[in-house]
Amino acid sequence: MPEYPVPEIADVALEGVLKALGDPTRLAIVRMLADGQARPKAEVWDAFATSKATCAHHFKTLREAGLVTYEVHGRTHDIRLRKIELDERFPGLLGAVTGAPADA
Amino acid sequence: MPEYPVPEIADVALEGVLKALGDPTRLAIVRMLADGQARPKAEVWDAFATSKATCAHHFKTLREAGLVTYEVHGRTHDIRLRKIELDERFPGLLGAVTGAPADA
Repeated sequence: MPEYPVPEIADVALEGVLKALGDPTRLAIVRMLADGQARPKAEVWDAFATSKATCAHHFKTLREAGLVTYEVHGRTHDIRLRKIELDERFPGLLGAVTGAPADA
Repeated sequence: MPEYPVPEIADVALEGVLKALGDPTRLAIVRMLADGQARPKAEVWDAFATSKATCAHHFKTLREAGLVTYEVHGRTHDIRLRKIELDERFPGLLGAVTGAPADA
């Protein structure tokens, strides 16, 4: 059992994804990660005028909804949008909400 | 002041739309209305195994989020997805969540 489990992409429900995206901070986080590159969590939460605890809660909500995954490198935790998987499962969705084309 | 006000499309926020769509029944209602045709409300709620009151609440949530509008014809109330306006404001979004292309 991984420390930070993510649902299999086939088990990710569209309504859960939409609900997770239906918050201004979470939508902004997803837009920040829209290129699909992993970023240190600290870099992401530094971009938002919110507490680390609040941001950690948003990360967890996004992870449990199937939108992001974490990559643990020693003491550094990166966060990454599951762009390739999500584009395949829900064609056009990420592009529509982040303004980035699916094949960018 | 109309009886059932809807926000101007320019004031409709993406996160509000996503939040409204982040519920299985509301997502199913929007899919049922995906062709942009007005339908009697009664026809829509008949399709769901839920109470009229619950469905009325979902209609209101969708209306206030900017997704649908009502058309009152005497005692018949129709509900219509604001497809053309939404496709213009959030290109690709409705297609991604309903599975219908924007120009269908």
